[in-house]
Amino acid sequence: MGNTKRIIVIGGSAAGPKAAARARRLDENAEITLFQKSADLSMASCGYPYYIGGIFDDRNQLLCSPAGVVRDSKFFWNAKKINSLVNTEVVRIDRKKKTVAFKNLLTEEQGVAEYDKLVIASGSIPKRPPIPGMSLDGITTLQSMADADYLRKIHDEGKIKKAVVIGGGLIGIETCEALHLAGVEITIIELLPQLLTFLDPQMAQLVEKYVRTKSNVILQNGVAAFLGENGKLTGVKLQNGDEIPCELAVVAIGVSPNITLAREAGLEIGARGGIKVSEYMQTSDDDIYAVGDCIEIPNLISGMNVHAPYGDLANLQGRVAGENIIKGNVATFPGTIQTGICKVFDYGVGATGLSEYAARVAGMNNIETLVNASLDKPGFMQGKLLITKLVVEREKGSILGAQVIGPGDVSKQIAIWAMAIKGKLTVDDMVNADLPYAPPFSLAIDHSIATAHIMQNKLKGLFTGISSLQFKEMLDSKTPLLAVDVRNPDEFEQMRLGIGEKLIPLGQLRKRISELPEDKNTGIVVYCKISLRGYEAALIMQANGYTQVKVLEGGIMAWPFEREK
Amino acid sequence: MGNTKRIIVIGGSAAGPKAAARARRLDENAEITLFQKSADLSMASCGYPYYIGGIFDDRNQLLCSPAGVVRDSKFFWNAKKINSLVNTEVVRIDRKKKTVAFKNLLTEEQGVAEYDKLVIASGSIPKRPPIPGMSLDGITTLQSMADADYLRKIHDEGKIKKAVVIGGGLIGIETCEALHLAGVEITIIELLPQLLTFLDPQMAQLVEKYVRTKSNVILQNGVAAFLGENGKLTGVKLQNGDEIPCELAVVAIGVSPNITLAREAGLEIGARGGIKVSEYMQTSDDDIYAVGDCIEIPNLISGMNVHAPYGDLANLQGRVAGENIIKGNVATFPGTIQTGICKVFDYGVGATGLSEYAARVAGMNNIETLVNASLDKPGFMQGKLLITKLVVEREKGSILGAQVIGPGDVSKQIAIWAMAIKGKLTVDDMVNADLPYAPPFSLAIDHSIATAHIMQNKLKGLFTGISSLQFKEMLDSKTPLLAVDVRNPDEFEQMRLGIGEKLIPLGQLRKRISELPEDKNTGIVVYCKISLRGYEAALIMQANGYTQVKVLEGGIMAWPFEREK
Repeated sequence: MGNTKRIIVIGGSAAGPKAAARARRLDENAEITLFQKSADLSMASCGYPYYIGGIFDDRNQLLCSPAGVVRDSKFFWNAKKINSLVNTEVVRIDRKKKTVAFKNLLTEEQGVAEYDKLVIASGSIPKRPPIPGMSLDGITTLQSMADADYLRKIHDEGKIKKAVVIGGGLIGIETCEALHLAGVEITIIELLPQLLTFLDPQMAQLVEKYVRTKSNVILQNGVAAFLGENGKLTGVKLQNGDEIPCELAVVAIGVSPNITLAREAGLEIGARGGIKVSEYMQTSDDDIYAVGDCIEIPNLISGMNVHAPYGDLANLQGRVAGENIIKGNVATFPGTIQTGICKVFDYGVGATGLSEYAARVAGMNNIETLVNASLDKPGFMQGKLLITKLVVEREKGSILGAQVIGPGDVSKQIAIWAMAIKGKLTVDDMVNADLPYAPPFSLAIDHSIATAHIMQNKLKGLFTGISSLQFKEMLDSKTPLLAVDVRNPDEFEQMRLGIGEKLIPLGQLRKRISELPEDKNTGIVVYCKISLRGYEAALIMQANGYTQVKVLEGGIMAWPFEREK
Repeated sequence: MGNTKRIIVIGGSAAGPKAAARARRLDENAEITLFQKSADLSMASCGYPYYIGGIFDDRNQLLCSPAGVVRDSKFFWNAKKINSLVNTEVVRIDRKKKTVAFKNLLTEEQGVAEYDKLVIASGSIPKRPPIPGMSLDGITTLQSMADADYLRKIHDEGKIKKAVVIGGGLIGIETCEALHLAGVEITIIELLPQLLTFLDPQMAQLVEKYVRTKSNVILQNGVAAFLGENGKLTGVKLQNGDEIPCELAVVAIGVSPNITLAREAGLEIGARGGIKVSEYMQTSDDDIYAVGDCIEIPNLISGMNVHAPYGDLANLQGRVAGENIIKGNVATFPGTIQTGICKVFDYGVGATGLSEYAARVAGMNNIETLVNASLDKPGFMQGKLLITKLVVEREKGSILGAQVIGPGDVSKQIAIWAMAIKGKLTVDDMVNADLPYAPPFSLAIDHSIATAHIMQNKLKGLFTGISSLQFKEMLDSKTPLLAVDVRNPDEFEQMRLGIGEKLIPLGQLRKRISELPEDKNTGIVVYCKISLRGYEAALIMQANGYTQVKVLEGGIMAWPFEREK
């Protein structure tokens, strides 16, 4: 062997193969061995829901290189000179001897291999609730290729009529869409009071309202027991005693870092339950690196460690580890701002940075938030709605986070805010952002820039907003106030909140200002469809001496509650 | 009047109304008058091509507020208390008396109005070449609502069969698409050797190749004369003597800042022909501000002033001027990175920052460039091609500019790079960018991040690229070299350059390395479809001692020349 570096990689999904491939590119002579517990390699696991839903039919597409070649052991050897052992589990790491012990799960054959550098990419394992009946036929997770095969078979057979998805997070919602496309009636069951906890409540409620047009949603309720007959699932019993008949249950209540091997080897584990690594992706053992879903990493805004099991980050981490095991610690992965997105039927739902909730948990209290709604491009180009919640630090106006939802181009909006956070930009920077404009792609003032404009107005005290949640609380508690809708009568006829509001179209407001209460300290909440006209109306009222005027942020479009019309 | 501020705005398209509206929002009592030479106000002029092409049919949509109300004088008065005089031209500014003299173009009525603060938003005027026959019927520009009406009528009547578009810039290309949709056969005539000069040649050639599938393109040739019969256009005569029959000619050779009023008033004019303004949008007269297409502004990367007639910037500048005329100079517009995008049939074509050409003109020579091609999202999600040219400063790796073209999601890519430049990010920052990933929206390693990865490899000396232009020059000059295509035989059968290349699939390269020339200093250019496998092959060759191996950047997908297949 001599100078040949021996590299072992544990895990063959995303981060592991990336580390191995990067190492190979930097050292043609290294001896690289990859152990993969399951049968497949480099699975595009984020694509499972679309395979299950029938967006595409060729299973191999989940396993292919961009050129259409299945990434099997032969491919890894021929194209990358990586020795990949599938169906082979690493059962022990011996850090003193610098060896791993492994076992072929089909043949039971065992072996030991030596390493100079080891990369652990053991991934995550789905959480399973300790509920009676978990062994019934018809209960699955959506984590492995085997799970995807199981659910795809259900799609193809078309026999199952009702399913429950347990967990209203990202995977739960994606699974819901996939099964809906397979013609299954779905009920999502979530223990918390909202879906998608990376969103703040108002945003989550808007998504929930939309999801309810496609499936049932049960919140603040868990599954107490799985019910069955002859070993087959027939329903679930909820914690409140309700029973829901179903033939399929998908458990999607989150994942935990798979750290068994690392812990047994005595590697340091972090507070969030993931393997502790440096920015070089190095564990507490200098010769062992760890990447992907099995580690925890810093959130770059809060500074707090998080478990961020995202496929894109796994690849970036793998690239860094692959370079460092060959070249020494020259490359770094600094951390995450937890940018994420998912497709929810025809909506995009995304977030980057901190939600208001996450910012407060991190001890940031000097923050300002704003909800803004607009089209993504002009109406004449079939523009679609976007709703953004922006969170900023109040003093400097630093961007802390953004959540964007709607049928519009959410992906671009999230990318813009993610880059703003990466560049440590402030609201004052964003008001003059120079983004690509043409009618097929955006409004003349892009939705993100308009959001920054309103936030700047808010920080300067020109815009006083109220969130729909706060407004609803005031209405529910019968706080005396005047609600003013400043749209046109025809708009009012088509759609309205119906909360006892007064209609004064913006164009008539100056003439009809005397119709407002005499008491200039009356609480007034003003709005329109998206609250642009609402903002102008508030300014007119304020110029006429009204001191307690607030604009309903995002207008009727961001109202997550029932409307009269 | 007393303390009431008198504000006059000249120009009612984008920047002017924005300045007026912002001023109103900040001062309910200001007396605001807007003069507009033409009949319409707040026209969405960037939407003209889509109205002409029949993407939408209701002309009012070009003039409407988001709520569907036409922004006419009545709207401006009722909703914004702005007195807007249409069909009214300001003919003179008297800076001493602080007045403007105006004339109603329909009634010939004249008047004089006093201002405390004046905003000039006089826009731009289309350049018209001094060519015989310019007065023939059938020759137009695409600048005004009247032009749009004229061309829409042509669409609706469907009589015209052949048209020429003079000028292969942004407006020319958009017009070409609009007329193509109207069933007209188009010939684009461009004086320069390429279309779309904001792109570097290779990128422009790729767009040209695509445009040629929809229309004729003539480069390096101008119109010498318009030919006519009975006052009607019948064709154009080119500078090389060729004649092209046509019934319609659209002149789109660019626009100049409309500075007549400003120059006559003695305001300072900049080197690029636009009104000179500070970052407050203030002209050389403290009481006069100027915004929009009539000014010049700094390019934030080169520091050189440019004329940047973009609708989005006009709005941002209007907002800044509107605030400053009310509040004093509190708001700034720092400049532009010249981000732009246009739709070219089913392609997006965009750029931000400096092209390689623009960087070199600005005296930057220590730069590195890269062309990268990939899908925008996975193949199984119907991913579409993106081709990016990235330009960076070599020392620190600062992002200087990016050009992106293709049927993929160009808009998001350009937004990402525009934000990277705004945040003064480097390639090292971009390699770990945290962007929204899910298969419906992007690849696990987003195209922009993959581009940064390859650029980082290039800066580190791991990747030695060659552009298609350089490679073509070597081929044309019969430079001795070996071209190696490392795709699979079936791919080679479907599509190939046919330049005498040798086919060695990547997976066979290590075994067949002896088939390469004995002389390890032989020049080798290696590639695949997008040059990812090409890169891996180059590393294998280098590890085997070959010293002169280059990767064809962007692979076959970024090859703008003829292919054998």
